[in-house]
Amino acid sequence: MDAHLPSALHDAMSTRLGDGWLTGEACRPFGGDDSRRWAMPAAVALPRTQDDVVAVVRACRSHRVPIIARGAGTGTTGAAVPTQGGVVVSFARMDRVVDIRAADRCVVVQPGVLNGELQLALAPHGLFWPPDPSSADACSVGGNLATNAGGPRAVKYGTARDNVLGLVAVTGAGDLIRCGGAYTKDATGYDLTHLIVGSEGTLAIIVEATLKLAPRPRAQAGLRVLYRDAATAAAAVSRIMARPATPAMLEFMDRSAIALIRHNGSDVPEAGAMLLVEADGDEDTLPYALQALADAAEGDGMMALDVAADGSARDRLWAARRALSPALRTIRPGKINEDVVVPVSRIPDLVAAMEALSVDAALPIVVFGHAGNGNLHVNIMYDDGDADETARAQAALPKVFARVLALDGTLSGEHGIGLSKRDYMADAFSAATLDAMHAVKVALDPDGILNPGKVLPPREAL
Amino acid sequence: MDAHLPSALHDAMSTRLGDGWLTGEACRPFGGDDSRRWAMPAAVALPRTQDDVVAVVRACRSHRVPIIARGAGTGTTGAAVPTQGGVVVSFARMDRVVDIRAADRCVVVQPGVLNGELQLALAPHGLFWPPDPSSADACSVGGNLATNAGGPRAVKYGTARDNVLGLVAVTGAGDLIRCGGAYTKDATGYDLTHLIVGSEGTLAIIVEATLKLAPRPRAQAGLRVLYRDAATAAAAVSRIMARPATPAMLEFMDRSAIALIRHNGSDVPEAGAMLLVEADGDEDTLPYALQALADAAEGDGMMALDVAADGSARDRLWAARRALSPALRTIRPGKINEDVVVPVSRIPDLVAAMEALSVDAALPIVVFGHAGNGNLHVNIMYDDGDADETARAQAALPKVFARVLALDGTLSGEHGIGLSKRDYMADAFSAATLDAMHAVKVALDPDGILNPGKVLPPREAL
Repeated sequence: MDAHLPSALHDAMSTRLGDGWLTGEACRPFGGDDSRRWAMPAAVALPRTQDDVVAVVRACRSHRVPIIARGAGTGTTGAAVPTQGGVVVSFARMDRVVDIRAADRCVVVQPGVLNGELQLALAPHGLFWPPDPSSADACSVGGNLATNAGGPRAVKYGTARDNVLGLVAVTGAGDLIRCGGAYTKDATGYDLTHLIVGSEGTLAIIVEATLKLAPRPRAQAGLRVLYRDAATAAAAVSRIMARPATPAMLEFMDRSAIALIRHNGSDVPEAGAMLLVEADGDEDTLPYALQALADAAEGDGMMALDVAADGSARDRLWAARRALSPALRTIRPGKINEDVVVPVSRIPDLVAAMEALSVDAALPIVVFGHAGNGNLHVNIMYDDGDADETARAQAALPKVFARVLALDGTLSGEHGIGLSKRDYMADAFSAATLDAMHAVKVALDPDGILNPGKVLPPREAL
Repeated sequence: MDAHLPSALHDAMSTRLGDGWLTGEACRPFGGDDSRRWAMPAAVALPRTQDDVVAVVRACRSHRVPIIARGAGTGTTGAAVPTQGGVVVSFARMDRVVDIRAADRCVVVQPGVLNGELQLALAPHGLFWPPDPSSADACSVGGNLATNAGGPRAVKYGTARDNVLGLVAVTGAGDLIRCGGAYTKDATGYDLTHLIVGSEGTLAIIVEATLKLAPRPRAQAGLRVLYRDAATAAAAVSRIMARPATPAMLEFMDRSAIALIRHNGSDVPEAGAMLLVEADGDEDTLPYALQALADAAEGDGMMALDVAADGSARDRLWAARRALSPALRTIRPGKINEDVVVPVSRIPDLVAAMEALSVDAALPIVVFGHAGNGNLHVNIMYDDGDADETARAQAALPKVFARVLALDGTLSGEHGIGLSKRDYMADAFSAATLDAMHAVKVALDPDGILNPGKVLPPREAL
């Protein structure tokens, strides 16, 4: 047992949870996430019921011990890392699809179910849950909700926050609260549901969610469109988004991303920018939707447009996008990947600013991502074995955020804040706005035991 | 000057706001809304700037004087009525469309702009703001946000909460906060934007909003479908909502609503239930969408289906819906209209429960509304000059809410809570959930000056 854990807490939890209470070396796998950060938990709880979670929170509160809710550990910001010790609550044993309500287009789930498993369970009903982070096969729905995860489909279907109807959660006061339900319209009291989504386990711990579902489209088709430069591609994004039929995906790659996949053998021609556009719908209407998107994609600066109407052509088209992450590793082993957001009309300014920053820092910076939402992934590439490159990469990061905020953008569109962006929050928000967020934190977690040190900068730093 | 207003507050506001500070009889028009409630404000402030609003809130806070934010006074719950006196803040002079950002598919507005005026300003850009309450020509965007207003289009496009990207607001602490912005994806800190929407001026006063826009569809067409009973109509609603192409409207009328419009001269045949379904989109694809909706509408219990493919046929179709509210007045002068919500699959149970309640209460109860969202308007009709009928209507109301909650529904889908449903909140939420809402209220309005007595039941009542 960890020396930092009060023995009364240990005894009570050990009795209640049995083999669902881990201490010592068994806790090691529950200490890290995809941010490369890691810290040893004092203990790990594996609750089986909502009441178990209430019991853990109340016990921890009475001893002022931190609680860190954990999904599948695929987060990129350190949000699930127990940097101040305490008890990690893993939802590995609360992973059931509780109730598929096809007639109500919603599903009730426990937080530990994996996104990919949920999609498999929904498929026979002709339904899906829209959030599609690249880690979908490995990430949990609870983690998706905690970070407000997105993915390419968000341009049409929204993010996790847009696709949740209700929650059952345990506040930092140890109270089980229930908000929303199996309905899509709600003007009854305060919207705690959407407040808790994206709060990264700092306001309340989600123990059950009612998720909004979408009907599975029967057909898909795609376009690959090359442009002279980022400015003409961004103008096309605005034209495409002005159409009544929103594309199902609208992905962007900048000049350096295209050069990279070409260098790695892709058949994409040389260009200043590329859009990958996907339409979905019924077989009857898809050709029209694709034609409308193609019409909107055409304009000043367009160099080439390829249609992928069938499955194999579509696979080839998206192969270019999938090739990108592995290709990044071939230029430098180290990568700082930030999922910044700017207004769509500011995409060219962002790309130009990143090109200038790349020259300044003498490091490759590759920009690609979800253009329809203005949510671009800025990848600063560096050799993490080279102290000088590492220092230059780290020095470039605050400049990325400064440029994004100067363009009226924000720090994160789908990864969240966690630890890695926490200290930029005071640049993104006024002191009064951060004060209001702190006040909400205290309201739901009066003793500050839920995931301390994450999302909001410490009060004394303000 | 009202005797209840501290003279220091009066003098300071009178100096700052000039003719934008009203007292005495001039306040009379600012004391009521469409709930038939009215109370005399101690004073009315007509701010011109965000700083004016900050000054009003800070001055009122220092004197512990209530502040009631007011849009256009079309609310139905008494939320804008100054039942505890204090200063009504009217946004009649903050009514500008600040910035139409067509390329970013959003618009920045002041809260006092009317919904209908905003739509006119957006039309030349081929865009619209989706919330479409029946009072659209007369209601303000600020009021729409405060109540999370909806309308028939919400089934496809969402409510006010789903169509706001960012807010500038003044908390009860007198702080100007800014959250969200001109982007559609945000995982940066706590979502105060969606929390403030629907809080009816009790958490913060909205002074500017960035609204999400949708492209105007180029064509519309409709279906009128008659069913044997509510159960077969509700099954059709689930089938329609399971299609990839969500209808733009999906309205329901029960047997008594159909009988009523028939009695008033409508050409609708006799039936147990009716659906009005609308598709929107491009000219190319609309016929397919309409056919798909017709296919889904067909099934057990369907009696007749009429297509309204062109403008005049569509007008005739929707005329039946529009005829309903005036027709209601012909059966009884008094009406209690509640916009309850149930899961779509529970619509038949709700309709059956209201039929039984109508018999019990010996009063007509007419049910119609937004079936795709399970958001039905239950109208208890009574003669408000008849003490016995009035008493029976008032006694029936709690039974309506009890039935709705027993069906896992909620109190309001688009009107909000205000005063009229406040005392049912303890039936809709657990004590712990209401405690959490109260804690959030205290966090953003520490002295309880923002619209006191609305939304949440008083603490001592819990």
